[in-house]
Amino acid sequence: MSLKSARTTVRRLPRRAAYDHDGVHAILDAGFICHLGHVVAGQPFVIPTAYGRDGDVIYVHGSAVSRTLKNLAEGVPLCLTVTHLDGLVLARSGFHSSMNYRSVVVLGSAVLVEGDEKVHALRVISEQILKGRWDEIRGPSRKELRATTVLRLPIDEASAKVRTGPPMDDEADYELPVWAGVLPLSVRAGPPEPDPRLPAETPLPAYLRRRRR
Amino acid sequence: MSLKSARTTVRRLPRRAAYDHDGVHAILDAGFICHLGHVVAGQPFVIPTAYGRDGDVIYVHGSAVSRTLKNLAEGVPLCLTVTHLDGLVLARSGFHSSMNYRSVVVLGSAVLVEGDEKVHALRVISEQILKGRWDEIRGPSRKELRATTVLRLPIDEASAKVRTGPPMDDEADYELPVWAGVLPLSVRAGPPEPDPRLPAETPLPAYLRRRRR
Repeated sequence: MSLKSARTTVRRLPRRAAYDHDGVHAILDAGFICHLGHVVAGQPFVIPTAYGRDGDVIYVHGSAVSRTLKNLAEGVPLCLTVTHLDGLVLARSGFHSSMNYRSVVVLGSAVLVEGDEKVHALRVISEQILKGRWDEIRGPSRKELRATTVLRLPIDEASAKVRTGPPMDDEADYELPVWAGVLPLSVRAGPPEPDPRLPAETPLPAYLRRRRR
Repeated sequence: MSLKSARTTVRRLPRRAAYDHDGVHAILDAGFICHLGHVVAGQPFVIPTAYGRDGDVIYVHGSAVSRTLKNLAEGVPLCLTVTHLDGLVLARSGFHSSMNYRSVVVLGSAVLVEGDEKVHALRVISEQILKGRWDEIRGPSRKELRATTVLRLPIDEASAKVRTGPPMDDEADYELPVWAGVLPLSVRAGPPEPDPRLPAETPLPAYLRRRRR
C-alpha cells in the first residue's frame, strides 16, 4: 500500500520522492525530533518536538496544559516533518548548489492516547531518543501521567524526499576552476557531561559508552 | 523594541523564552535550514528549506514553479522555525528528561523580491550556508533568476526559546542509582568529498580547510 495522496504527491523534482512504507519508516527511525505544524485561526505554527514511531503510528507528547497539544488533541489537520541534513552540495554555480537530505512529511490528524497505551507511547518516544534508557529510569507516576498529553498520528498519508550524490552542474561549468563536491554533515554526540549532583562512582550506561566511540 | 506579540508569547515554561532582537538573531545566524509552515485549504504543510538573515529580514528561495513558493508569495500567513538541538537532557525520570536546544519562531507574511535585491538575497542565503563561497562560484544568469523565486520575511514578530544545563530532577530521585546528565549533540562536517569530475589539482578553498580542523 502506498502512502501517496494528492496532497503528499511531490511536484518539485519528483524523482527524489518515495511513498513506500519502508522508505518513510527508515527516515523516521533515523531521528527523534520533528517539526509539527498546526493552524490556529488561519495562522500556522511550527514547533519542534520529540517523537517515536511504533509500526504504522507516530507518538508525540507534551504538557497537558500546552496550547499546541490541546489544539492537536481536538483532531485538527497537522503536518509532521522530519529532516536529516546529510551534506552541502557545492556546485560550480549557485543555481545548482543544493543539499543532500532525507525528509518525510506526514499529514493527518492526531488522537489522544490514554490508559496502558499512554505508558507504552512514552516508552516508544524514550527508546527512539536513546535506546535502553527507559528501563533504567523511574517510570511515570499517576500525577505525571495526568500532567502529560500523548497523541497518536497514523502514518497513512506521507511522502519521503531524498537527495544524495555529487552536484549536477551545467556542462559548460565543469571547466570552471572552482572546487566542487559535497561537504558531509551529521549530528554527532560529544562526551557525556555528568550531572553535578551525580555520585562519582555511578557507571556510564552501555548505551552511552557505545556512543562515545 | 521587542519581537513579542500575543501570538508569539511563549506560554509553556516562559522562563525559557526571549523576545529581543539580539537573542533571536543569534539563533537564526547559527543555522541555515528552517522549517517553513504554510496553510493550503486548512491543511498545514511544513517544508525544510535554506534561509539567510540580513538585518531585520529573512530571505528564502526556491523554484519559481514550486507550489509552496507561489502560495507564500501571495502573502499568506507563514511560520518560520529554526531549531538547534544541543543535547539530550538525561534525567532520573522520564518526566524530567528533556532536550537542550535553541529555537526561534518567526510569524509573518512574505513578499516577492525582485531586481537587484534578488541577487543580493541569493548571496545572503549562500553566505549563510558557507561563508566565502559566493564570490568563487558562477553567478546567476538571467534565465536562472527567472526560474528562481526569492521571498523576504520581516523579523518583527518572533520568539526564541532556549534550554541549557543539567537535568532538574525531583528531590527524591537524586538518590536513584542511575546515570544522569547531558549528552551533547552538534552538527559536524566530515571530510569534503570532491566531485568525481573535479580535476585533481583543484585546491580545497580556505573556508573548507578551516572546517576540516
